[in-house]
Amino acid sequence: MFKRIGLIAKRGDPRVKGCLDRLINFLQTRQVQIIIDAASARLVSHSNLNIAANTEALGIRCDLIIIIGGDGTLLQSARLLAKHDIRLVGINLGKLGFLTDINPQEMEKYLSEILDGLFIEEERFLIYAEVYRDGQCLSYSNALNDIVIHRWNMSHMLTFETTINGHLVSRQRADGLVIATPTGCTAYALSAGGPLISPSLNALLLVTICPHTLTSRPLIVDGDSCIQITLCRDQIGEAQLNSDGLLCQRLIPGDLVRIEKRQQIRLIHPQGHDHYATLREKLDWGKWL
Amino acid sequence: MFKRIGLIAKRGDPRVKGCLDRLINFLQTRQVQIIIDAASARLVSHSNLNIAANTEALGIRCDLIIIIGGDGTLLQSARLLAKHDIRLVGINLGKLGFLTDINPQEMEKYLSEILDGLFIEEERFLIYAEVYRDGQCLSYSNALNDIVIHRWNMSHMLTFETTINGHLVSRQRADGLVIATPTGCTAYALSAGGPLISPSLNALLLVTICPHTLTSRPLIVDGDSCIQITLCRDQIGEAQLNSDGLLCQRLIPGDLVRIEKRQQIRLIHPQGHDHYATLREKLDWGKWL
Amino acid sequence: MFKRIGLIAKRGDPRVKGCLDRLINFLQTRQVQIIIDAASARLVSHSNLNIAANTEALGIRCDLIIIIGGDGTLLQSARLLAKHDIRLVGINLGKLGFLTDINPQEMEKYLSEILDGLFIEEERFLIYAEVYRDGQCLSYSNALNDIVIHRWNMSHMLTFETTINGHLVSRQRADGLVIATPTGCTAYALSAGGPLISPSLNALLLVTICPHTLTSRPLIVDGDSCIQITLCRDQIGEAQLNSDGLLCQRLIPGDLVRIEKRQQIRLIHPQGHDHYATLREKLDWGKWL
Amino acid sequence: MFKRIGLIAKRGDPRVKGCLDRLINFLQTRQVQIIIDAASARLVSHSNLNIAANTEALGIRCDLIIIIGGDGTLLQSARLLAKHDIRLVGINLGKLGFLTDINPQEMEKYLSEILDGLFIEEERFLIYAEVYRDGQCLSYSNALNDIVIHRWNMSHMLTFETTINGHLVSRQRADGLVIATPTGCTAYALSAGGPLISPSLNALLLVTICPHTLTSRPLIVDGDSCIQITLCRDQIGEAQLNSDGLLCQRLIPGDLVRIEKRQQIRLIHPQGHDHYATLREKLDWGKWL
Repeated sequence: MFKRIGLIAKRGDPRVKGCLDRLINFLQTRQVQIIIDAASARLVSHSNLNIAANTEALGIRCDLIIIIGGDGTLLQSARLLAKHDIRLVGINLGKLGFLTDINPQEMEKYLSEILDGLFIEEERFLIYAEVYRDGQCLSYSNALNDIVIHRWNMSHMLTFETTINGHLVSRQRADGLVIATPTGCTAYALSAGGPLISPSLNALLLVTICPHTLTSRPLIVDGDSCIQITLCRDQIGEAQLNSDGLLCQRLIPGDLVRIEKRQQIRLIHPQGHDHYATLREKLDWGKWL
Repeated sequence: MFKRIGLIAKRGDPRVKGCLDRLINFLQTRQVQIIIDAASARLVSHSNLNIAANTEALGIRCDLIIIIGGDGTLLQSARLLAKHDIRLVGINLGKLGFLTDINPQEMEKYLSEILDGLFIEEERFLIYAEVYRDGQCLSYSNALNDIVIHRWNMSHMLTFETTINGHLVSRQRADGLVIATPTGCTAYALSAGGPLISPSLNALLLVTICPHTLTSRPLIVDGDSCIQITLCRDQIGEAQLNSDGLLCQRLIPGDLVRIEKRQQIRLIHPQGHDHYATLREKLDWGKWL
Repeated sequence: MFKRIGLIAKRGDPRVKGCLDRLINFLQTRQVQIIIDAASARLVSHSNLNIAANTEALGIRCDLIIIIGGDGTLLQSARLLAKHDIRLVGINLGKLGFLTDINPQEMEKYLSEILDGLFIEEERFLIYAEVYRDGQCLSYSNALNDIVIHRWNMSHMLTFETTINGHLVSRQRADGLVIATPTGCTAYALSAGGPLISPSLNALLLVTICPHTLTSRPLIVDGDSCIQITLCRDQIGEAQLNSDGLLCQRLIPGDLVRIEKRQQIRLIHPQGHDHYATLREKLDWGKWL
Repeated sequence: MFKRIGLIAKRGDPRVKGCLDRLINFLQTRQVQIIIDAASARLVSHSNLNIAANTEALGIRCDLIIIIGGDGTLLQSARLLAKHDIRLVGINLGKLGFLTDINPQEMEKYLSEILDGLFIEEERFLIYAEVYRDGQCLSYSNALNDIVIHRWNMSHMLTFETTINGHLVSRQRADGLVIATPTGCTAYALSAGGPLISPSLNALLLVTICPHTLTSRPLIVDGDSCIQITLCRDQIGEAQLNSDGLLCQRLIPGDLVRIEKRQQIRLIHPQGHDHYATLREKLDWGKWL
């Protein structure tokens, strides 16, 4: 099934080393080639490992990549690896993640099954944002969870106009806007008041952050829509664009952000994985008084 | 293009007659056959019209049906006609509807264009609910907007369990549950706090009505999902199932409701129709303080 | 401190007897007179108890009443006892209640302290609803949690007009309206989307149930306000008025409901009682992902 | 009634001059002394006016102050004048404000009545925030609408602990927290999802901004409560404290913010002023589909 296994570990977490050592010991008992990225290689006791210069290089050489860390580590890797349509599986060091669902205590058991071909594979798409100023593309970034446009430094609310496939949707005055994939509905979109979305749905979610109106509601549109947000020229102050929580671009009045679905990764889960069980566990969803 | 035009008018509205007479005068200037349902025929001044016994009969004989009334009239006709995958266009007697978007003042202009083949056609799917008691199917109904399970008579909250494709989603204590199509997101689901959904999205929306918890959120799942709701056996009191606002079935503890997408209609809009413009007009959406 | 202790137990709960027997044994070791209502007396092993014909009679004779049951039992007793401005303390048979906060396992310890004068006393006010039809008062009821006006039987939404101290507040189309005391903010008002309110605040909370608009928000007004709700005459169908969840009156179009603060009870808590700890415990409030 | 009238006008708005000239002409026909702040004096055609060095000086010398501008101008003046428990009346240059409710077209009529003693007077309290670092008070500020603690620069969510009168209320992970007066419930607290509150209620409103949980709700507490917010020491990144939208203090982990009611102003309204009418006008409140 999987023959070339890549390993990526979270930086700066003291729990990584023990987990990574155990993982390599386990993988060495299986007929697979192990490739580790250079930064993670410095953490482990094993020598003579195949080393890849960086995350992107792993993407070219591996057919399965194991992430040791949390949802943040998986998100960051996913953005870098998305161009390779790669398979990822996540081992969480701390509590259960939405994306990293294998507990270190049970990793040998579940990874055995996965290497034997017994697993669930889910496609999760990313979105791609391009920022245009005066007609020129300034920058671009991709995200597995969300692209967020947010006012910078609490100065004034933003005013912005949103179109979908060229149709005006709304003009709003707000702190910002979250454009999330179904994967991202449990991240910042949830904080901003958005709904839950089945991860397999081909849809994009728009949630306004602190709209200065009573009439705002989250909006869910077709995943193949082209969303454009234009910061109104008469607004005061600046904004910023974040991809999966990382600052990607400062925005000024008149800037246009164009967002579309592009690229995907393949999340590997153990057999019996149940997305709704994770929601109930993490969100206390369905618990009543 | 369209050669056999069916007419259905709202019952009991004094504004219908004038509008229907004008509409028939207009259609008689075009090379089309006019067929009217028996109840509407009694309202008009014209004689010698082709009459269909009922709405279903119109569905067999026509390739376009014009509804004169409001969203309620169109909903009711759509449920009866859905098995014929029919084209419907709606003329609103009062204010702009989400479904009936032609103003009577402009109906000749827009219908001319539509008969000339200049129009926008949208597929809108219906959902189908079956109620099972002790393994037997008691009743079924279809809906273009929503299926609602609601407690009967304010006695006690309901407790119910929801599964999607056989996976447990939640156990809830609430007044009820709305299962809506994207078409229905502006109907009762909106009142219950649901998001807006693009009408073309292949998705189903679940919104809990007055959940007795802080942890409930609307849920959007794939349109091809099979949703099952089971009323818990330990609950006190009864519930009812409504399709597009009409009472269809009393429910008792232990009853199971199975809901799936089935059937569709084709909504015809004038060229230039803009769904988001209707949302802004009717919901004051995107209006800020 | 307290010399005449009344006892009221929940009906039909098998856990009551053991708890009530223990409670009477404990109280007989203290220099207090025990008075029990006739229905509860039938549950206990002790004979020669002072018996009161009913709950109201207890209110006249006692200076502290102990409720064994849950929040529902305390609510029901409070409504009957409110005219006596009585002190109540609640022992919960099951899980922690918002109102009944003494666990049976620890009741001797906490009741000892209370009988020694070591306790927290909180005033909780009730609201009083009068229903007028054609200028005549049809009925009245009181509530410790909430008065709810709700459509009857899911027929059509209600349209109603709300005034506060004679000023029009809103005309709404909705399933209904909750008028809650601060005590009731964790009951049905919470399900309808209302905020949390400190129980000592002199305020009334209005939360619309499933409003058919985007522009509704909960409203908090001075506790001494006079709230009037009039069901619009052009609505179809009926409504009902519930006090603390019990049906009190069927309503028809044109009916006017007048709601004001009236009466109070005194809730006795063990020393160290912390309302916010109860909220965190019961609502998972302040828990993050 | 009022003998010494102060005038304060918005800076940098071209509509001010005409309105201010008319206002002075009108006031010169009445037996009152007019005092204008130095900055506003430069805008007017009249000479020989009594000039006060600044807003605070006006507060000492006047018994009524007329604000020409919008809610922002009135807020700013109120903070500076609050120590004098002064009467303020607002003329809005643009659209109706929540605080500035006299239209310039009608100002002579309404001000005549007010000078004749025919008016409504409302007390509106302010809140006062002190920031403590390592036990030392770093800074303080007051606000008529709200004190907002917000993360700085989108880095990471804040984690903070809130106590009320020394009782722990919650530990939260969120973008921030709004502590609003009833006056401020239509400002940022509304954007963050808060309820509406009658302006006369003696209450404080806490609304969490984008909480990363499903279990957050707005909280309303007694107006005389002492609210303390402590930024958790283990958080990354910084926060800022804003008073009525103006940056007042950068915050670091470990900082404590103490907020209490202090000072008040007296808002003067024309007779017949109706707060709920303003809500309906500005928020489309009570409008249904």
